[in-house]
Amino acid sequence: MHPLDYLYKPKSIAVIGASADEVKAGYQMVYALKTFPGKIYPINPKADTILGYKAFPNLKAIGSPVDLAILTIPARGCINALQEAGEAGVGAALIISGGFAEAGGEGVQIQEKIASICRRYNIQLLGPNAAGFTNPGAGIAANFMPWINEISAGGLGIISQSGAMSFSLAALTQTLGLGVSLITSIGNGAVVNISDVVEYLGKDEETRAIVLYLEGLKEGEGRRLYDAVKETADKKPVIFLTIGRSDVSEFAASHTGNLIGSYRLKTAALMQAGAVMADSCDDAIDAADLLSRRRLQPKENPGVGLLTGQAGPGLVIADYLRNRGVLVPELQPATIEKIKKELPPISFIKNPVDTTRPGNTFPNVLKAMSEDRSIDVLAVFALHEPAIIDPIDTLKQFKDIEQPLIFGTSGFPKHVGPTRKLLADFKITTFTSPDRTARAIRALVDDSKAAYRKQAAKNQPLPGIAIEPLEKTPDEAEALRLLNELGLPAPRHTVCSTHEEALAAFSKLKKPCVVKVLDPSIAHKTEVGGVILGVKTEKQLLAAVEHIDQIDSGAGSATGRKYLLAEMAEEGLELIIGAVNDPAFGPAVLLGLGGTTAEALGDVSMRLAPITAPDAREMIAALRGRELLDGWRGSPAVDKEGLVKTLIKVGQLMIDRPEIKEIDINPVRIYEKGLLALDALIVLE
Amino acid sequence: MHPLDYLYKPKSIAVIGASADEVKAGYQMVYALKTFPGKIYPINPKADTILGYKAFPNLKAIGSPVDLAILTIPARGCINALQEAGEAGVGAALIISGGFAEAGGEGVQIQEKIASICRRYNIQLLGPNAAGFTNPGAGIAANFMPWINEISAGGLGIISQSGAMSFSLAALTQTLGLGVSLITSIGNGAVVNISDVVEYLGKDEETRAIVLYLEGLKEGEGRRLYDAVKETADKKPVIFLTIGRSDVSEFAASHTGNLIGSYRLKTAALMQAGAVMADSCDDAIDAADLLSRRRLQPKENPGVGLLTGQAGPGLVIADYLRNRGVLVPELQPATIEKIKKELPPISFIKNPVDTTRPGNTFPNVLKAMSEDRSIDVLAVFALHEPAIIDPIDTLKQFKDIEQPLIFGTSGFPKHVGPTRKLLADFKITTFTSPDRTARAIRALVDDSKAAYRKQAAKNQPLPGIAIEPLEKTPDEAEALRLLNELGLPAPRHTVCSTHEEALAAFSKLKKPCVVKVLDPSIAHKTEVGGVILGVKTEKQLLAAVEHIDQIDSGAGSATGRKYLLAEMAEEGLELIIGAVNDPAFGPAVLLGLGGTTAEALGDVSMRLAPITAPDAREMIAALRGRELLDGWRGSPAVDKEGLVKTLIKVGQLMIDRPEIKEIDINPVRIYEKGLLALDALIVLE
Repeated sequence: MHPLDYLYKPKSIAVIGASADEVKAGYQMVYALKTFPGKIYPINPKADTILGYKAFPNLKAIGSPVDLAILTIPARGCINALQEAGEAGVGAALIISGGFAEAGGEGVQIQEKIASICRRYNIQLLGPNAAGFTNPGAGIAANFMPWINEISAGGLGIISQSGAMSFSLAALTQTLGLGVSLITSIGNGAVVNISDVVEYLGKDEETRAIVLYLEGLKEGEGRRLYDAVKETADKKPVIFLTIGRSDVSEFAASHTGNLIGSYRLKTAALMQAGAVMADSCDDAIDAADLLSRRRLQPKENPGVGLLTGQAGPGLVIADYLRNRGVLVPELQPATIEKIKKELPPISFIKNPVDTTRPGNTFPNVLKAMSEDRSIDVLAVFALHEPAIIDPIDTLKQFKDIEQPLIFGTSGFPKHVGPTRKLLADFKITTFTSPDRTARAIRALVDDSKAAYRKQAAKNQPLPGIAIEPLEKTPDEAEALRLLNELGLPAPRHTVCSTHEEALAAFSKLKKPCVVKVLDPSIAHKTEVGGVILGVKTEKQLLAAVEHIDQIDSGAGSATGRKYLLAEMAEEGLELIIGAVNDPAFGPAVLLGLGGTTAEALGDVSMRLAPITAPDAREMIAALRGRELLDGWRGSPAVDKEGLVKTLIKVGQLMIDRPEIKEIDINPVRIYEKGLLALDALIVLE
Repeated sequence: MHPLDYLYKPKSIAVIGASADEVKAGYQMVYALKTFPGKIYPINPKADTILGYKAFPNLKAIGSPVDLAILTIPARGCINALQEAGEAGVGAALIISGGFAEAGGEGVQIQEKIASICRRYNIQLLGPNAAGFTNPGAGIAANFMPWINEISAGGLGIISQSGAMSFSLAALTQTLGLGVSLITSIGNGAVVNISDVVEYLGKDEETRAIVLYLEGLKEGEGRRLYDAVKETADKKPVIFLTIGRSDVSEFAASHTGNLIGSYRLKTAALMQAGAVMADSCDDAIDAADLLSRRRLQPKENPGVGLLTGQAGPGLVIADYLRNRGVLVPELQPATIEKIKKELPPISFIKNPVDTTRPGNTFPNVLKAMSEDRSIDVLAVFALHEPAIIDPIDTLKQFKDIEQPLIFGTSGFPKHVGPTRKLLADFKITTFTSPDRTARAIRALVDDSKAAYRKQAAKNQPLPGIAIEPLEKTPDEAEALRLLNELGLPAPRHTVCSTHEEALAAFSKLKKPCVVKVLDPSIAHKTEVGGVILGVKTEKQLLAAVEHIDQIDSGAGSATGRKYLLAEMAEEGLELIIGAVNDPAFGPAVLLGLGGTTAEALGDVSMRLAPITAPDAREMIAALRGRELLDGWRGSPAVDKEGLVKTLIKVGQLMIDRPEIKEIDINPVRIYEKGLLALDALIVLE
């Protein structure tokens, strides 16, 4: 038995603060539990019975163990109540009311105290400030939303940081005629957090797909969630929905900071862990509907075969899929030959296959497509036209084909509703518009791609690197040396402490040179005039170092200032390689196109460290401007494998050297063969 | 009476090819018309009655005028049938069957013939190859989809190039309990085209919002549609849905061609005309639902005030809106003071205003928000909780407020369905998930912004330009001279025909110079090595011109080759300004960020010419990298008003000189003050 079963599948429930007064939460909670088949113990020293249940003065008076205690009392009273619950051996607790950490002040301490009591007595506490949960299979609706009681039992597990969003998602689930294994909000997550429930539902036999609504994550919680999703998604699909696209306030701060928005990081991390991102609530539930019935085998780039009875919806679906990076491949010549025999000559026999109007050869065409080895998913769209095509008769014969089969249709709810239900028996999921069909297929394919990437990454060795612990923030030269040890060289350069040293070094370098101020207290050299490009003569060199001497670092005297003289690198495509140690998600690596335009357009991709070669290749492929690396307008393709190696090592460095808070290598020039770091900043925690 | 009333609101219908044989289209069409309250005349020389209607041997035999003739005969027979219909004074015709232009070959000629007959006799022909139409208000369902007969009459007009998409959209309309004034497919559009129907529904009193599904457009048809939407959107909202995001095959061809994809152009043109773009079928119908009840006054940037009963959905809505450029402004201090009195201290009183849980002060809070002059639209989200808040009682008192009021909720369909219906009576539109609420608000605001832009553009003077007709493709120097006449200068330059001229010119120019081959047959100078940068010495100059002499233009001898010597412009932000004379949409102007990165990322915006200052400012604001123009990381803001003037004049040039097929000014450098064209290509038709 899983410890969270005390919470989500209790056999007995005590309601602490139960009341006979209808306006009180303590009454409403007992009322909400009316369908619960187990024991209910209202705890109230002043009442004999509440809503027909015998009341008890306290937990001990019950005389037998209680699985779940629901507290309907104010925040301050919870400390003693949980202490008592612990002593009585209660397995789990739920606190819906607020006034804890989210309210600040005293609430923070109260929450710390109750968390500590729960940990001591091993009480699985949900909340505080959570909207409760509903487990229709166990007949329990521990919340104040009466209608949620009527939701059907089924295979979707809904976890939401927001109570209201759990109800919104539940309503859509019920609207589609689907059922849930659990709907739970997390609230303040003082003890039981989102990751615990992900892992729990991962092991729960009733749950066939998990839907997650996520807002923000506390320190360390992101990495924990990443790990939980990574393990769980191997067993069942995880679909998530999140916010923060428009939150620009978390962007900014440091040099790399403004490229690493939390939205980007959390979505990248969850997808890397194998979860599928949904664009909306509808999207999330549709994806869960499809994926709970049927997952696709892990594959790098699964092909979708689309058979349509009418051209328009076929175009809409194919356009959406291709735009979202889903392969709708050409059919094999043998397949086309088979299909040609079945359809009138004017039919469009590529992919999609458009029959113009479905006829009695529809099954033969679909069979031919299912035998095409480039097709991993089959989708059929046909308007509701029972006189022309009966979807049940047509499709049920395909219930045992290898590929998942998705049916899209359009019609009035009274017609398509029964079709949905009947086809579901054959593991065929039906969607009632072209877009929804397309979006669900996208989710199915993304799930398969994510699983493939995880598989591919699993057996990849991670490089051993041997970087000594960093005791103080390195200056640029030290940062470049460190990167050189990782295999990322810099242009030839020399560190000089005096004008004489600079002159001597200059004579040995290829001109023109770049002269830079070397001072770890100056993070943004260009902004203070600390980078002088195109230095060709000794006179220019002396002017440059004298200019640098004048810079006020703000950190006291400039005596002992150092100069970095470097040869100028050949022109080439510029990238940014960065890394952060994010408070929620831990070490993460960033890749972006370089230059002001790319920075303004924010074309970056991220992955949590450690990353393996397939992750690194994905990071490159995720750039909108990826074509620039493949040889743009006749320029040569660049050294992508070199880039892959660098990204892996930067990730490993972040893992091995947790004292590093941030790395910003900007720009990196990438050539046909090799990369050069032109500047590097390493910031310690 | 509008001529299209013969088609869409006929009083009498003849079915040519009517049949008593149930499997024939001629039977099914008479059957489909069973609800039609007017006269039905089956035309069949061999039958006495069909489905109870007296049959006639031909149109003349009817002896009274016929509004609409529906042809259910093969393509070839249509020529004679329409000739006969013309002679009998028939007002409109419908051909559902295919075998015309879409089939190629003989079908093309047949279509031309029937179109010519219809024009001669002024017959409003819908089709051929159209899926018919449905006008529930007139009791007519002229198509083969039996269930569409049951659709309710109402205010949505649905125009679709695809028959199946018209049914998909109609099914969603009915699912929401909405009704339609007309559902029509367009098919091949031989006579009646999409623009005709837009104009018709613009004048139709029953229609309160128009939904358009668009695929591709024929020559000239885009501009015609632009004009029709521009006129219609002033009167009622036009929402469109289109495809082609993933169609990369239409990108490409010439230098600018690969930035001007048809998807971009058609969406830009329709939005410029005042239409609202929908992202999906659901989105389109939700937007039409809301906009058919209430439009927002034209405003540059309307503010949305959001009041939520629960935080999660509020976050989802606000995040979506801000991400889509919708203003969710700060409330005024006076409003916040008023609200503070109504809500518990921990409530989040910014915008959104989150009450944590709706209570009896909800109406007072909403009233305070409605009195805030920064709020142009009010939206309320609250879960279905009738015991806590009755949306009808709470919201109906706001039915007369100035702002449109939108209600979002989540609950089971049996609960929220009745709420929807009741609130609709108060002109309050209800959406049943946070996302759908947000998407509909976005559409409402986009409609208002588009109307504002049109208003603002209306009274703007267009510049008079006086460019002589172009008789042959100008070379770069001629193109630069022409742009200079428009007010866009180039760096100082000289055209030379000999090495001696080049040496003489070189002595007068500021070094370094750029030397370019000048040959109108060489469009892509860089690719053939025809651009030599950084020429500083006479020796380098001679090497450059000698190199240019060796270039094979592919157009015969290189004798008489010219050179363009130009001073090198100062560094600055690079843009691309372009224009095309699109076959469908006519002259259009393009603005993009310059440089390979921006080109690879495809950051461009487009507008149909002529464009006025507000259009041009919108083009700048539509660039993802627009921040680069506002002073990026300490660099100065650039001369946006100079850019606006240039865009307007390039637009005017395209209008005045229709012989220009394409303009590509790439790059344009833009400075704090002024712009410089560094290269220009003008291609004639």
